[in-house]
Amino acid sequence: MSASTAKPAGVYAHLLPPSWKGKIAEWLQEDCPSFDWGGFVVGEDTKRATLFCKSEGCLAGVPFFDEVFRQLDCTVTWHYNEGDWLGSPDGSAVKIAVATVTGASRKILLGERVALNTLARCSGIATASARFLAKARNAGYTGIVAGTRKTTPGFRDVEKYGMLVGGVDMHRYDLSSMVMLKDNHIWSTGSVTNAVHAARSACGFSLKIDVEVQSYAEAVEAITAGADVVMLDNMDGDTLISNATRLKTEFAGKHKFLLESSGGIDIDNVQQGGHVDNAIDIISTSSIHQSTKHVDFSLKIDPSS
Amino acid sequence: MSASTAKPAGVYAHLLPPSWKGKIAEWLQEDCPSFDWGGFVVGEDTKRATLFCKSEGCLAGVPFFDEVFRQLDCTVTWHYNEGDWLGSPDGSAVKIAVATVTGASRKILLGERVALNTLARCSGIATASARFLAKARNAGYTGIVAGTRKTTPGFRDVEKYGMLVGGVDMHRYDLSSMVMLKDNHIWSTGSVTNAVHAARSACGFSLKIDVEVQSYAEAVEAITAGADVVMLDNMDGDTLISNATRLKTEFAGKHKFLLESSGGIDIDNVQQGGHVDNAIDIISTSSIHQSTKHVDFSLKIDPSS
Amino acid sequence: MSASTAKPAGVYAHLLPPSWKGKIAEWLQEDCPSFDWGGFVVGEDTKRATLFCKSEGCLAGVPFFDEVFRQLDCTVTWHYNEGDWLGSPDGSAVKIAVATVTGASRKILLGERVALNTLARCSGIATASARFLAKARNAGYTGIVAGTRKTTPGFRDVEKYGMLVGGVDMHRYDLSSMVMLKDNHIWSTGSVTNAVHAARSACGFSLKIDVEVQSYAEAVEAITAGADVVMLDNMDGDTLISNATRLKTEFAGKHKFLLESSGGIDIDNVQQGGHVDNAIDIISTSSIHQSTKHVDFSLKIDPSS
Amino acid sequence: MSASTAKPAGVYAHLLPPSWKGKIAEWLQEDCPSFDWGGFVVGEDTKRATLFCKSEGCLAGVPFFDEVFRQLDCTVTWHYNEGDWLGSPDGSAVKIAVATVTGASRKILLGERVALNTLARCSGIATASARFLAKARNAGYTGIVAGTRKTTPGFRDVEKYGMLVGGVDMHRYDLSSMVMLKDNHIWSTGSVTNAVHAARSACGFSLKIDVEVQSYAEAVEAITAGADVVMLDNMDGDTLISNATRLKTEFAGKHKFLLESSGGIDIDNVQQGGHVDNAIDIISTSSIHQSTKHVDFSLKIDPSS
Amino acid sequence: MSASTAKPAGVYAHLLPPSWKGKIAEWLQEDCPSFDWGGFVVGEDTKRATLFCKSEGCLAGVPFFDEVFRQLDCTVTWHYNEGDWLGSPDGSAVKIAVATVTGASRKILLGERVALNTLARCSGIATASARFLAKARNAGYTGIVAGTRKTTPGFRDVEKYGMLVGGVDMHRYDLSSMVMLKDNHIWSTGSVTNAVHAARSACGFSLKIDVEVQSYAEAVEAITAGADVVMLDNMDGDTLISNATRLKTEFAGKHKFLLESSGGIDIDNVQQGGHVDNAIDIISTSSIHQSTKHVDFSLKIDPSS
Amino acid sequence: MSASTAKPAGVYAHLLPPSWKGKIAEWLQEDCPSFDWGGFVVGEDTKRATLFCKSEGCLAGVPFFDEVFRQLDCTVTWHYNEGDWLGSPDGSAVKIAVATVTGASRKILLGERVALNTLARCSGIATASARFLAKARNAGYTGIVAGTRKTTPGFRDVEKYGMLVGGVDMHRYDLSSMVMLKDNHIWSTGSVTNAVHAARSACGFSLKIDVEVQSYAEAVEAITAGADVVMLDNMDGDTLISNATRLKTEFAGKHKFLLESSGGIDIDNVQQGGHVDNAIDIISTSSIHQSTKHVDFSLKIDPSS
Repeated sequence: MSASTAKPAGVYAHLLPPSWKGKIAEWLQEDCPSFDWGGFVVGEDTKRATLFCKSEGCLAGVPFFDEVFRQLDCTVTWHYNEGDWLGSPDGSAVKIAVATVTGASRKILLGERVALNTLARCSGIATASARFLAKARNAGYTGIVAGTRKTTPGFRDVEKYGMLVGGVDMHRYDLSSMVMLKDNHIWSTGSVTNAVHAARSACGFSLKIDVEVQSYAEAVEAITAGADVVMLDNMDGDTLISNATRLKTEFAGKHKFLLESSGGIDIDNVQQGGHVDNAIDIISTSSIHQSTKHVDFSLKIDPSS
Repeated sequence: MSASTAKPAGVYAHLLPPSWKGKIAEWLQEDCPSFDWGGFVVGEDTKRATLFCKSEGCLAGVPFFDEVFRQLDCTVTWHYNEGDWLGSPDGSAVKIAVATVTGASRKILLGERVALNTLARCSGIATASARFLAKARNAGYTGIVAGTRKTTPGFRDVEKYGMLVGGVDMHRYDLSSMVMLKDNHIWSTGSVTNAVHAARSACGFSLKIDVEVQSYAEAVEAITAGADVVMLDNMDGDTLISNATRLKTEFAGKHKFLLESSGGIDIDNVQQGGHVDNAIDIISTSSIHQSTKHVDFSLKIDPSS
Repeated sequence: MSASTAKPAGVYAHLLPPSWKGKIAEWLQEDCPSFDWGGFVVGEDTKRATLFCKSEGCLAGVPFFDEVFRQLDCTVTWHYNEGDWLGSPDGSAVKIAVATVTGASRKILLGERVALNTLARCSGIATASARFLAKARNAGYTGIVAGTRKTTPGFRDVEKYGMLVGGVDMHRYDLSSMVMLKDNHIWSTGSVTNAVHAARSACGFSLKIDVEVQSYAEAVEAITAGADVVMLDNMDGDTLISNATRLKTEFAGKHKFLLESSGGIDIDNVQQGGHVDNAIDIISTSSIHQSTKHVDFSLKIDPSS
Repeated sequence: MSASTAKPAGVYAHLLPPSWKGKIAEWLQEDCPSFDWGGFVVGEDTKRATLFCKSEGCLAGVPFFDEVFRQLDCTVTWHYNEGDWLGSPDGSAVKIAVATVTGASRKILLGERVALNTLARCSGIATASARFLAKARNAGYTGIVAGTRKTTPGFRDVEKYGMLVGGVDMHRYDLSSMVMLKDNHIWSTGSVTNAVHAARSACGFSLKIDVEVQSYAEAVEAITAGADVVMLDNMDGDTLISNATRLKTEFAGKHKFLLESSGGIDIDNVQQGGHVDNAIDIISTSSIHQSTKHVDFSLKIDPSS
Repeated sequence: MSASTAKPAGVYAHLLPPSWKGKIAEWLQEDCPSFDWGGFVVGEDTKRATLFCKSEGCLAGVPFFDEVFRQLDCTVTWHYNEGDWLGSPDGSAVKIAVATVTGASRKILLGERVALNTLARCSGIATASARFLAKARNAGYTGIVAGTRKTTPGFRDVEKYGMLVGGVDMHRYDLSSMVMLKDNHIWSTGSVTNAVHAARSACGFSLKIDVEVQSYAEAVEAITAGADVVMLDNMDGDTLISNATRLKTEFAGKHKFLLESSGGIDIDNVQQGGHVDNAIDIISTSSIHQSTKHVDFSLKIDPSS
Repeated sequence: MSASTAKPAGVYAHLLPPSWKGKIAEWLQEDCPSFDWGGFVVGEDTKRATLFCKSEGCLAGVPFFDEVFRQLDCTVTWHYNEGDWLGSPDGSAVKIAVATVTGASRKILLGERVALNTLARCSGIATASARFLAKARNAGYTGIVAGTRKTTPGFRDVEKYGMLVGGVDMHRYDLSSMVMLKDNHIWSTGSVTNAVHAARSACGFSLKIDVEVQSYAEAVEAITAGADVVMLDNMDGDTLISNATRLKTEFAGKHKFLLESSGGIDIDNVQQGGHVDNAIDIISTSSIHQSTKHVDFSLKIDPSS
């Protein structure tokens, strides 16, 4: 299995502006707020350490791992690429040498836990994302699979990045990106139309508006009011698909919009009836990044290096 | 003249999450990094100060002004509302009591300059925005007038906010919001189509893509590739309008997109031929926020208060 | 099932000094870096929202949830206590009203995702910890169950706190707390004895030293050199237990030390032979906090409130 | 026209300690808070970009521009120097290649807007300052022209720096620098004398005290009490000059002080009678830095580079 | 003995803008970076604690102490004022109840060490300053006694504040305040005159320039070039005083300047010949704030409160 | 005299993780918050400066000094090592060239005061620590001498580091390290036993618990409850020693614990009877780091370099 079916159109690391690097410094400080007793004992002899992958999965998080060690004056050489699937062809136990880290021994140990904790979680999300996507594709779904904003506070960039490497859509990054209007916004303004118009008056033309609707009528109202995305909430399989199909037909050549479905879809039920019809443009699910299993990595210093 | 022709659909201050408040603290620190000699002299007697507006314009920046004084334990009472036009009906010199600030005298003086500097700039941008919009509307333009990212570093939220109060569209907030693809992106990927597809593969469905094109052919390619907005660059009045009209006709009922024009439009030429045709959905211009004149405010403590 | 078998000796929230509150502010900023479009639409009417728990588990993270909303001027009233087990007696689907949040509607929505993301993860770790502990106790184990440093970068305080609420030991917080000496430290200094002495010369009397050993002989050397904790690494069930028993006998009345075992123990194998013998003082396992399932919470505003 | 009449006594960039560099990092973060979609599309091929100046003015802000690109691993080569006047001798349209930026294409684009926004504003202030100064010198004024504290919050160092490059005095940097005593301070303490003595008791010998006075009598009192600078407020042309002359005569050989005039002076009226008499040591005006026009710069990547 | 001979002209706490409060938060974090074990044990019962002074000295640092406890929701009531001399009339052992702190017991203990460490150092500096000043006054010296920039990094505001409470001049706060030109600046520019002119061209009229000179001739050059303060370096008692006297005579009615002497003066030699002649306007000495003895304070919770 | 009697088991600089470097940047900013006037005058010619030690003592703080200059692009070459005793064999006046700093002259001057202030205080603490330790050893004491948490806020890492270089134990770093239970904790929980058990339930096995006791009976209770360290408070010489001896006898072979004595011990009385009996494992004293004399260093640029 490969992490994503097609080669990406660019290098994911190029998505990262320099600003996130300050967060790495904070993580290093979290793990060593005052003195590094182990560093005193182990000293600064230059050593070479091997990053091993010990459970099957998709490699994701290379630039974060690199930056941890860059801040510690170590260098990293990778034997695999971001997005590569790390696994044994015959399903036997995995122990793959993924990268080599070279630097002062105390600095390798200072970065070890922060770097591994980041890589393990990022790769875990990429792995779950790739697996979910593969299953949806196998079921004939050609649309978009997307994540959510249910990420670990302070760690969203790593987790969204993992989704991307795993081949899925990150969905909106935060409240300042795509506008999402839900029941509360509709109550407050009196109607779907009012809510969409109010949002547009502030967010302007440059952002999309996604409206969560409870019925076919609300969907029609949202589309007419200018929603870019309509999320069909609270509808079960057949209703969902018939509504989606009908909306697509109704507005063909008149309004451009995307239909999103969300809630309760995970890797175990994605292939069941009523979930992955291609009338639905987007399936969003937090199951690909919340409570996902990490990929198991370890870092081993070669004593003779 | 009023700042904007219609009542806004909400309260602009509600756009502000708490996070920007830390910036106010930094601004106060910039203006008093160590000791406040004047504060020692003036002491902490409770006083009442009046905020005067001394040049005509649109009031904008109320929540920023409020927060400066909230951090200094002062209270502000406003006699005008965000977005009100402050001016004399007969064009005579203006001196309008806009708000009252109450608190310890040293704290009023500590906040004075930061609060006024912010309000003067924000209101200046709202004023220029409102004036430009009024002129465009007078010339029959019904589309969107928008600003740009040419803002003062570190001060973007205040300046974008001023545009909004002035009735115009803020355009994309930053590089992480709507994607804009220009010549460089097109060269790098080989074609408009490649650039749009590459951007979409990363940004996903939730963001818009705006493509800057040099010709009718490029515009067609961008729209076909899925651009949400097409900026017609480097085209003069008639060419611009005929291309815009032709694109609208060509893709009617097939693709949804917005046409943007930019460059060289300001309040002096907006009513001239070839700039504000309604075939253009968006006119973006930095002239409404860069190098704009401030509105003149002062804060006067009442010695007998 | 209850989260922990005994009432805690204090209130866990009292462990938190004010310093972590700045992190909450950063998390809120992560989720809304510039403008809050939804907040503009929904406004500031005072509303009441209910926090529902929708999957069985142990409630953990109350002070973090509280602080998110305190920073947004909302108040939270809890109907359950930190550490309470949220579940239906008959195993049926759970939907428990756990708390009420009152405040401006836009502020409830601003805090919603950050608060839920934190609570869901913290409770998930408390739940996994409590379940593991219960299984170990059922198997007759009376010793300490402890976590590890394999936490999400930047989120360690929440995750360690969740372990504590779940009834397990947090193990060392960071590299500056208890000293751990592993193979690298021993190689660097030439012997277990040298490594322990070097560590003690820097960390002083006030910290403990934990030494990871590969053999009985190394364990003897570590204890003799003054190790406070000895981790028996790389030993299988019977060897592990016989070594542990022999060390306890050998040093009875001579040296005080704790024996730790680690690696490969999880909730599925903890009751198997060779894992939970009481000759082992501490079982440490990342399985209680890494890749654990979250507890599902949602926040619902009452439109009529 | 040249930016200033004399060669500066040093290199302005040497005024900058390293601490402001953190602000550049914040500005870059403001413009790209999460992901850089354009960077993903454009990639990291090394390119050469040209900085063009497209409107006449004084080049100012070189070290800020340099630092933006240094943080992005790009190098900048300048073809003009800080303070050079960029203009065509014959007044024709300007398009001057001012500098070359070399680096990864995505990094050039990441820095572009922050660097240009800074340079355009800094140069605009230097230009307005130089023009005002030239006009004052033409009118025979030999004294000091100075700015004010009416700067953009968070951006003061750039704006004060621009004044200096333009050849004018920055005036006091903040409330912790030179003490300024105004009406409020005098009311609070009961007299000009009391206010000056109170200020001196705290600020000590190392700072100057500037007192704003409303009358000749107050000026005499301020000078006698030890004011270093006296600002003659609220006096019109002839009164201003006669008072200034009389004070200079009265205290010759007895007290050393500077006379400052402020308020309502700008480039349009500076040559009118009553503004620039040499009995006034300092003319301070915010017109040289508030609401000034920016200098128009653009950055163009050479596709064939 | 009293801390200073005259009542101050204002309240020292009014010198403090809000910005320093962030530093208190950092200090609290330094003392409790993760969990507060003692706080868990002691809980949140409301208690009353007494601040005792146990060694004679001048009370200084009240606003810092207050702010530590304000950040911890405790209230402080003072029984003595900033600047009061805490001592027994008959020289017997001191144990004075100086203030009462009320709040949750865990919060009193969280703030205890940070608050005491700050107060003890600040009061120690005020005490040494007051004692030095008293001795100088006893020796007939009527000039200024000033401190230096030899303060503890990160703690300068507290230490400078302590000098002020002790009745002495803080001298320049930092490199951005009064300009000091020393041998290096003179070498670099070729002459005292060049150095003063270069400094003035940048710092402008609003700051003072202090020049360190090695000879009478250099002093004359500095004064003529416009130095505001001249420090007579490297001169012994008689030479120092005769040079000072001669300079005062020479420039009477021509130039206004202050003479400073520095180096090697401390409380043990200040009354010896050649140190405190009134021809010297300023004696600056780090002996009043570097290596000074702290005042001994303790905080005792009343168990029955 | 040498700073410590034995060669350290590692390099103290290896105790420092990268996180503290941000503090150096803040210290540089404290000393130059806006412009560096002297830097403008002196320029950027490369110069060589010599660090001189002018008073006898122990060199400590090398990595902090290095980092100040590293952030300013200067290089430091040391002629002595961390921990070396700087003094003249015959007791004559000291002026030792300790290191050479090379870099741009303005940058040497920018770092000068921050670097010297840090080194002077750190070395002062190392010197006092080494002297105290030597006296205790001369009196036959073979136990641990330790410092306290009475350090300068924000500067603890430097001061604790100085203790270590001086050969003494740093004692617990902060409230999150070793737990200390005092009278307040015991009152709150009802007994020594309760307090120890409550602390252990939260801090877990990985931290030590130190209990301050007022009597022999309390000591017994603390040891029995599991205290790792017992501080015998409020006992005079003979009582102290007899209690200590009796506890050691009583619990021999049953409980492992350390006995600490604190309060009122300083270099003047450490050799008197009743202070340094070897039944006491740890003597803790703030006299080795609070109010200690600094070591006098200066930095001199060679004009001909």
